[in-house]
Amino acid sequence: MSGNVEIERKFLVASSDWRDEVSQADPIRQAYVAVTDKLNVRVRRYGPDAFLTVKGKAVGITRKEIETAVPVEFVEAVLAEGLFQGQPVEKTRYLVPHKGFTFEIDVFEGANAGLVVAEIELESEESDFPRPPWLGEEVTADHRYSNSYLAQHSWSEWGPPVEPPGGQVGGQ
Amino acid sequence: MSGNVEIERKFLVASSDWRDEVSQADPIRQAYVAVTDKLNVRVRRYGPDAFLTVKGKAVGITRKEIETAVPVEFVEAVLAEGLFQGQPVEKTRYLVPHKGFTFEIDVFEGANAGLVVAEIELESEESDFPRPPWLGEEVTADHRYSNSYLAQHSWSEWGPPVEPPGGQVGGQ
Repeated sequence: MSGNVEIERKFLVASSDWRDEVSQADPIRQAYVAVTDKLNVRVRRYGPDAFLTVKGKAVGITRKEIETAVPVEFVEAVLAEGLFQGQPVEKTRYLVPHKGFTFEIDVFEGANAGLVVAEIELESEESDFPRPPWLGEEVTADHRYSNSYLAQHSWSEWGPPVEPPGGQVGGQ
Repeated sequence: MSGNVEIERKFLVASSDWRDEVSQADPIRQAYVAVTDKLNVRVRRYGPDAFLTVKGKAVGITRKEIETAVPVEFVEAVLAEGLFQGQPVEKTRYLVPHKGFTFEIDVFEGANAGLVVAEIELESEESDFPRPPWLGEEVTADHRYSNSYLAQHSWSEWGPPVEPPGGQVGGQ
């Protein structure tokens, strides 16, 4: 169980050069059991583990977050019974260490395929942090990049068209 | 973790004669983290234990329910941070065995003081069950007696006036 005020900043990525520095990769599958004016309730499979998290609505870039580990079977039952809003969100999370910090890079799949987002967790709103060359535009304040929004409004519906990587045609 | 379809019937009580047959009594404190059109998410302290439950909206007297034990600290943090709708519901739950069945009798406290509700869990909608003399009017279909409704609309606002027990005046 952990409870804390979470300060995260979120960015698009400008290139895939971060892939050379990945230290860990895990599949994530999550769904929003409830999304209200005040908070959301999320269940998440993260690698072999499972969590339930209550997140208060953001105030600036700060939000209350209370999380607990739960049995994998609990999350699977919530998913199987359809007790959630919108669609489950599927992605792979890559950890990318950089100058003493760790970026979390989420590569989305399914209906949100094409979207790649980098996040960094900070101790305070004023904390300084390094900007690797592959870091793109900041989208912390754009609520469309929240996973709870993506669960109800797929990136495939509102994101820009995806260009094939490297302009390859007919490749694997 | 348990997941099942829950069939419960709910009654008012016509007298306090059930008190002679109580086998167990535990304090319950619970709150609704979220209440949506589709489901509610409840955290509960029950004696020394704590649970999180996702309940689908009732279809007749049947509803989906998925529950998991969680750390007591998780529930306390949700309560302390105010990450719930309405007010917490406080009550004492008495278990009352009767002819091979067990009634759960909830004596509400705080803003819902005066309300006493008896519930019995059944295997199917058609299951027969005994009717002890103290069992009152059935209120299974009256959504006002749901704890999620009581969390937002206190019994003190909509229930009948409470008569003092035994007409005592000035007693302890």
